[in-house]
Amino acid sequence: MSSPLLNELIDALRCLPGVGAKTAQRMAFHVLERDRAGASRLADRLAAAVERIGNCTRCRTFSEDAICATCASPQRDASLLCVVETPVDQLAVEQATGYRGRYFVLLGRLSPLDGMGPKELGIDLLAARLAENEVRELIIATNPTVEGEATAHLLSQVARAANVRATRLAHGVPLGGELEFIDRGTLAHAFGGRQLIEN
Amino acid sequence: MSSPLLNELIDALRCLPGVGAKTAQRMAFHVLERDRAGASRLADRLAAAVERIGNCTRCRTFSEDAICATCASPQRDASLLCVVETPVDQLAVEQATGYRGRYFVLLGRLSPLDGMGPKELGIDLLAARLAENEVRELIIATNPTVEGEATAHLLSQVARAANVRATRLAHGVPLGGELEFIDRGTLAHAFGGRQLIEN
Repeated sequence: MSSPLLNELIDALRCLPGVGAKTAQRMAFHVLERDRAGASRLADRLAAAVERIGNCTRCRTFSEDAICATCASPQRDASLLCVVETPVDQLAVEQATGYRGRYFVLLGRLSPLDGMGPKELGIDLLAARLAENEVRELIIATNPTVEGEATAHLLSQVARAANVRATRLAHGVPLGGELEFIDRGTLAHAFGGRQLIEN
Repeated sequence: MSSPLLNELIDALRCLPGVGAKTAQRMAFHVLERDRAGASRLADRLAAAVERIGNCTRCRTFSEDAICATCASPQRDASLLCVVETPVDQLAVEQATGYRGRYFVLLGRLSPLDGMGPKELGIDLLAARLAENEVRELIIATNPTVEGEATAHLLSQVARAANVRATRLAHGVPLGGELEFIDRGTLAHAFGGRQLIEN
């Protein structure tokens, strides 16, 4: 298009995940043609979110306050601490389970080549938290990837040093999955971790 | 999430076409975690585009100036006028063809039930343009839908009244298409409009 502003908008939209040149173009034309109010609102909300959403000083999740609502809530069981890699993972646990404890968000996973070491993951903050002697169980919910497993190992060492029980999410066959299509690693895990049927 | 700002951002992102609750959530977390600079830029560009992009007073396409670059350019052949439904269609013609004439954008199609009549489509502006006696050919490039065909019919009447030759994009088998999978209407059109092979 000959409009520089429109080209800049199309280009800027590509910062969104999964949005390429063609989708960005469609989005730009769509909002200009049909939803300028929505676009204005989005511009507002984006600017406000970028400016005001920081990280909770206690659990490091996204929060516009110094202490997030989950950390501040007295309803939450302070003896349970679930460690996740990202705020999205926290949201996933929160939505899927009835977990009523607190969280600690690493904002990454152990990956020395990307400059993610214990310091970047806030391990010192976590160790200080465990030293408060409030936490009885550290639930390690990092992703079952190579880096996630390495991170889990590090976390279990931190827990042992603080004399706190560490647990790990169970691995196995996902619900609705079919054995035929499940990767070997998962199947081996599920087979090795088979459980007694209680009658 | 417990952050109201984050929830508002996720909600605002849903104004984009093809973005549902899950995608909006992914987008919000992605920009907050990894691309805050991009998000700020997008907020800026969105606000600027909504505020400053209006319509060209001559051809009605998106433009931040009163007269768009295509209408203002002396390189463009003023004797050819291509009528399209939307700015996206204009872009499609511009990118696919070597067309060097000018455009007129209807910003819709004839659809009385949705309140789109000749007035909303700027037919009076188009008639005034044809009355300038500069245009020799009106190329009707509305979509081959029911409303598009009705619009094309209206446009051909406007052209006839102004004594301007009206042409319509050819219908037929798309390149790379297979006869087996082409809808009957298109095939009938292509069959009826068969052309002599010049040897």
